[in-house]
Amino acid sequence: MRCLVINPVGTDVFDGDTRKILEAAKRPETEVEVVSLAADRPKHLEYHSYEALVVADIVRLTQDASTEYDAVVIACFYDVGLREAREVSGRAIVTAPCQAATDIAGHLGNTFSVLVTRRKCIPKMTENIRAYGQGHAMASMRPLGLGVHELQADHKATCDRLLSEGRKAVEEDGAEVLVLGCTAEYGFYETMQRELRVPVIDALLAPFKYAEHLVELRDRFEWAPSRKWGSEPPPVSASDGEDVTD
Amino acid sequence: MRCLVINPVGTDVFDGDTRKILEAAKRPETEVEVVSLAADRPKHLEYHSYEALVVADIVRLTQDASTEYDAVVIACFYDVGLREAREVSGRAIVTAPCQAATDIAGHLGNTFSVLVTRRKCIPKMTENIRAYGQGHAMASMRPLGLGVHELQADHKATCDRLLSEGRKAVEEDGAEVLVLGCTAEYGFYETMQRELRVPVIDALLAPFKYAEHLVELRDRFEWAPSRKWGSEPPPVSASDGEDVTD
Amino acid sequence: MRCLVINPVGTDVFDGDTRKILEAAKRPETEVEVVSLAADRPKHLEYHSYEALVVADIVRLTQDASTEYDAVVIACFYDVGLREAREVSGRAIVTAPCQAATDIAGHLGNTFSVLVTRRKCIPKMTENIRAYGQGHAMASMRPLGLGVHELQADHKATCDRLLSEGRKAVEEDGAEVLVLGCTAEYGFYETMQRELRVPVIDALLAPFKYAEHLVELRDRFEWAPSRKWGSEPPPVSASDGEDVTD
Amino acid sequence: MRCLVINPVGTDVFDGDTRKILEAAKRPETEVEVVSLAADRPKHLEYHSYEALVVADIVRLTQDASTEYDAVVIACFYDVGLREAREVSGRAIVTAPCQAATDIAGHLGNTFSVLVTRRKCIPKMTENIRAYGQGHAMASMRPLGLGVHELQADHKATCDRLLSEGRKAVEEDGAEVLVLGCTAEYGFYETMQRELRVPVIDALLAPFKYAEHLVELRDRFEWAPSRKWGSEPPPVSASDGEDVTD
Amino acid sequence: MRCLVINPVGTDVFDGDTRKILEAAKRPETEVEVVSLAADRPKHLEYHSYEALVVADIVRLTQDASTEYDAVVIACFYDVGLREAREVSGRAIVTAPCQAATDIAGHLGNTFSVLVTRRKCIPKMTENIRAYGQGHAMASMRPLGLGVHELQADHKATCDRLLSEGRKAVEEDGAEVLVLGCTAEYGFYETMQRELRVPVIDALLAPFKYAEHLVELRDRFEWAPSRKWGSEPPPVSASDGEDVTD
Amino acid sequence: MRCLVINPVGTDVFDGDTRKILEAAKRPETEVEVVSLAADRPKHLEYHSYEALVVADIVRLTQDASTEYDAVVIACFYDVGLREAREVSGRAIVTAPCQAATDIAGHLGNTFSVLVTRRKCIPKMTENIRAYGQGHAMASMRPLGLGVHELQADHKATCDRLLSEGRKAVEEDGAEVLVLGCTAEYGFYETMQRELRVPVIDALLAPFKYAEHLVELRDRFEWAPSRKWGSEPPPVSASDGEDVTD
Repeated sequence: MRCLVINPVGTDVFDGDTRKILEAAKRPETEVEVVSLAADRPKHLEYHSYEALVVADIVRLTQDASTEYDAVVIACFYDVGLREAREVSGRAIVTAPCQAATDIAGHLGNTFSVLVTRRKCIPKMTENIRAYGQGHAMASMRPLGLGVHELQADHKATCDRLLSEGRKAVEEDGAEVLVLGCTAEYGFYETMQRELRVPVIDALLAPFKYAEHLVELRDRFEWAPSRKWGSEPPPVSASDGEDVTD
Repeated sequence: MRCLVINPVGTDVFDGDTRKILEAAKRPETEVEVVSLAADRPKHLEYHSYEALVVADIVRLTQDASTEYDAVVIACFYDVGLREAREVSGRAIVTAPCQAATDIAGHLGNTFSVLVTRRKCIPKMTENIRAYGQGHAMASMRPLGLGVHELQADHKATCDRLLSEGRKAVEEDGAEVLVLGCTAEYGFYETMQRELRVPVIDALLAPFKYAEHLVELRDRFEWAPSRKWGSEPPPVSASDGEDVTD
Repeated sequence: MRCLVINPVGTDVFDGDTRKILEAAKRPETEVEVVSLAADRPKHLEYHSYEALVVADIVRLTQDASTEYDAVVIACFYDVGLREAREVSGRAIVTAPCQAATDIAGHLGNTFSVLVTRRKCIPKMTENIRAYGQGHAMASMRPLGLGVHELQADHKATCDRLLSEGRKAVEEDGAEVLVLGCTAEYGFYETMQRELRVPVIDALLAPFKYAEHLVELRDRFEWAPSRKWGSEPPPVSASDGEDVTD
Repeated sequence: MRCLVINPVGTDVFDGDTRKILEAAKRPETEVEVVSLAADRPKHLEYHSYEALVVADIVRLTQDASTEYDAVVIACFYDVGLREAREVSGRAIVTAPCQAATDIAGHLGNTFSVLVTRRKCIPKMTENIRAYGQGHAMASMRPLGLGVHELQADHKATCDRLLSEGRKAVEEDGAEVLVLGCTAEYGFYETMQRELRVPVIDALLAPFKYAEHLVELRDRFEWAPSRKWGSEPPPVSASDGEDVTD
Repeated sequence: MRCLVINPVGTDVFDGDTRKILEAAKRPETEVEVVSLAADRPKHLEYHSYEALVVADIVRLTQDASTEYDAVVIACFYDVGLREAREVSGRAIVTAPCQAATDIAGHLGNTFSVLVTRRKCIPKMTENIRAYGQGHAMASMRPLGLGVHELQADHKATCDRLLSEGRKAVEEDGAEVLVLGCTAEYGFYETMQRELRVPVIDALLAPFKYAEHLVELRDRFEWAPSRKWGSEPPPVSASDGEDVTD
Repeated sequence: MRCLVINPVGTDVFDGDTRKILEAAKRPETEVEVVSLAADRPKHLEYHSYEALVVADIVRLTQDASTEYDAVVIACFYDVGLREAREVSGRAIVTAPCQAATDIAGHLGNTFSVLVTRRKCIPKMTENIRAYGQGHAMASMRPLGLGVHELQADHKATCDRLLSEGRKAVEEDGAEVLVLGCTAEYGFYETMQRELRVPVIDALLAPFKYAEHLVELRDRFEWAPSRKWGSEPPPVSASDGEDVTD
């Protein structure tokens, strides 16, 4: 299957690592392509107004991918544009980190905590998790106090922060599973699992593997995205980008 | 106070009516400006992917307006871009129809029904209303089976549909208040109120008057938008549209 | 518009300040009248059984006011008698602090904390906030450990308590907005806002200004209180106080 | 044990039947006293403003009873004044129909429907049931279209209405238990149970027997009403009715 | 009435105390029988997989008891097998600690905390309490860090732990009532109540007395378990243990 | 990977079909083994008391499988014994139909309806779906009025019922996805999808494929079941079935 991974930021600094990580994680038959956005787009999505600047790109990329790809992964833990992209994905599966990771967590333990970059993230991510119906299972959301682009700057320092907050999430908040609340928190889950002895769900791997899973279901059983009621797609002409009026 | 009303669609067909209606509804000291988007934008937002194509415009317009205007009204019942626009509005108030109308309804009766254009709208609008905490008060959401651009095409026919569905909402679903679930459902609430004998909240007037109300509160009491935690704005440089990386 | 503000206590010690504050806060065309109850009524409503002793007064005052006034404000953060008074208000608007303040807070930030007088208040006020649908947005409820009549006794000491608990609400509990949970906590919000840099909603101003707002909506658009189903008023004879049997 | 049953209406027309029914239903050692209110009080509580006129009486009667009686039953399905009366009941137990009946229903089946007098009742009773945490178990609330004083006027006609709505509640709404939503719906549950083959909880018997139960628990185990936090009673002087200021 | 109390563990070490406690607590006319399970059953139910090993016994014992007994009490705070046993109890009442104790708590205060043996218990017990609709009233669940069989080993030490955690539940978490979250936490509630001055609901007494209460209701009013929809029992042949296929 | 599928009933009539269906649906490297229970176990689980008779078997089978298998699938839509089996599965994944199917549905549409065998099922299945956090997405639960062993008796008749109820679920209840609420409803989803044009999630395939997915995640990323807090397993000795006391 062919999977398009969108790093919805105006920089390709994450693309290499993303590709490398997913190449190592993919099923043999999967082809991964990673794209990021034009350089005039925000370099991170720590602000909701930055999300606004990329959601049209996500939709257009998804729409273009819908005939060529089997799946699209939106690689941002805000699950930015998920509803919008799903509408135009045709038969392609669209996944995103928060929904996929919390779904997986629900099969591995009773409760989870999310380790997010900054307190900034908490209200919207909490709203998302509640909308997905997982608010009851969320033990806590703990901020690292690190920006997206600081996460990989000093690997050791970030790992220490993750271990420290993760340990508190488990011991004080009662989390049985940890979820990494940013796709740029990659490269840490294995160390964390070894140290903390609970599963640690990586925000990049979760939606990617969930997409492979759903594509397999679609290909075997025709469990493709519903196109009924709220999932109704726009008329075909819209995909030409010319006539979305009628 | 100065209020910018954004008709977030790529057509100005609604702008004249919007202006006329709000001019008649405004407080004396209010100045209303109505804008719509460039012609290559979707002509309506019946699809979530179309919302994606306008949310950046809404944010940019809000950001630009934040120093010149006291309030911005996003004139679409999906409250599209509300969170994102609020982040960059500085001291300006941002309102949107669904939040404003259901807030008002909560002071006028125990329950409300929303009369939406098509079934397409129901899942996302329901999710919004639940996120605002008003799910318990929603008696029903009833579709008219009419597209946005059909609403004003045959005034009599639309009014008949609204009366028919509104009556069922009151009599069968137990609604004490009706909410019109599209800003293009203007020009009907008075007739409906007369016929149905319950308050009928107009989706254009509600956020506009709510904005006037909140601006007055801000000007008198400094109750400006919070800029803390999830409401933290992006750094100033971002508003230049050049450097949103750091 | 004419607004009756009910201080639902058997003392007029707050009336002067209430009048002065609202005179300063009102729109030019608004006329404010402040009343309190007979001297044999409780001097404060810190106990629910005291509320029971005043709710009939609130209803009678509202019913009497319904033909002379445009709005009635029940000046107690328990929103005591709100449902009951609304039933008999005819076309007059009835507002109360908790509902109005949390509505306003919902437009200014993602979360709010309420600073209440004593722990005594927490269960009922929490139940109210949940019934209004705002439980998800409440970051915390923090008691000052001060009785109603102590709040104005030592302005400096109360302000220090408010600043101290308000700061903890913001920093520890994640509140983006603060709500003052007693109408007698007046005279503090401005200092608090300056110090804490988040909006601080005053419990007296909020329902008063909300009432002005709703009266304007009623006068312009006929958005009067619903009189359907649960909002059905008692038959006219009841207002004579003689024949409520039939 | 001694139990005071308050028919919180300004008529004694129900007192005889109430006494007779409870005398037949009581444990041998229980003494039942039934009181109603002064003739200038509302003759029924179909309106919330009428409730307002009796809640002070309920509190005063409870406070007076607190030293002489073991329990107080508030015989109105709105559970009017329950929180307020409990505050001043000292060691006496206070019960009310809605809370008691839905608690019992929760041990007899998965879901229940409430058969109420008129649609008027539905919003407030629904809010109560949600506040008690039983909203998830409520299959429906069905109105009979009869006023309180009509219920006993034509026994056969009322019974037919109850059977008809009760049957629909079971067959169409999925109720496993029925709850009679008015204390004046007495004398019907046995016939209904025989016909409909599901338990039918009587609104008068439920809180009365629940009170006996709780008094027994109190007398045996000292499980008396909590007097902590929100359940803190007013200071003693208040019970003298003179000095509730301090 | 005849009541069968099931200690659903493969040891009779608790049976003597159980019998003694319930003999002292019962109504004169009640006959109590206490049974535990065969010696190859788990000696405690701290693990959910141990519950799995006893639920069939609980069902069989209940089914056998259904014609001889009026009530069955499942003496484990997980309320293990409650739904399953109720299905086959015929006209007999089945109660269990968590549902009974939280119901009672709801009449004595606004909030409760549960003092459980170990953190192990928290997720499932929390899920139960939420399913009963009492999640909103739960102030906290606090573990003692003691296993079931340690609770009675050193009475003084356990009492100290209970007092210490109970005090924190009241003072820090705002509990107005305490609930003992294990039937083996017997013999402590009186001391705790004296020290902590809030009602302390014993996990053994609560369901036993609730059963007496419900049997009285059944005998007087025919409020027997519903046998409709989800409460439908299996066909008679099944009770013979031979033919549950058809 | 090796997967054990438990048909938790005392008949092997479903085993052949189960094996055939899963053999056709599995990944190449997966080995499927299907087991059912001893002939003295219930032949179906339409009654909760029957579930009680098989949950110990499920736990024992899972515990035995935990060292030999990578996954265990509990093939009953009640997800019977899921929590209990997960506790003893060691590193093996345990899945069940309701959780897996509703998770998948959440990625394919906004709402789903469940087509269950009989009304009997509705309360417990609804409670499960709410406990998983998916109550908000459930459009309806519709019974077929067919017992488990009738489903495959007349394929055409069952298919007609499924199409008829499925169509109503989509058109009247607003379902965007359908979920088959019994593992014995196999062999229908393809026809249904073709006719109804929405995804139809099969209750046997969903947990099986979800198990493959989770095992892959475990093998690649060590995302094994949490063994912390509520997920803590019993001590090793317990698995010997001899000493579960200590």
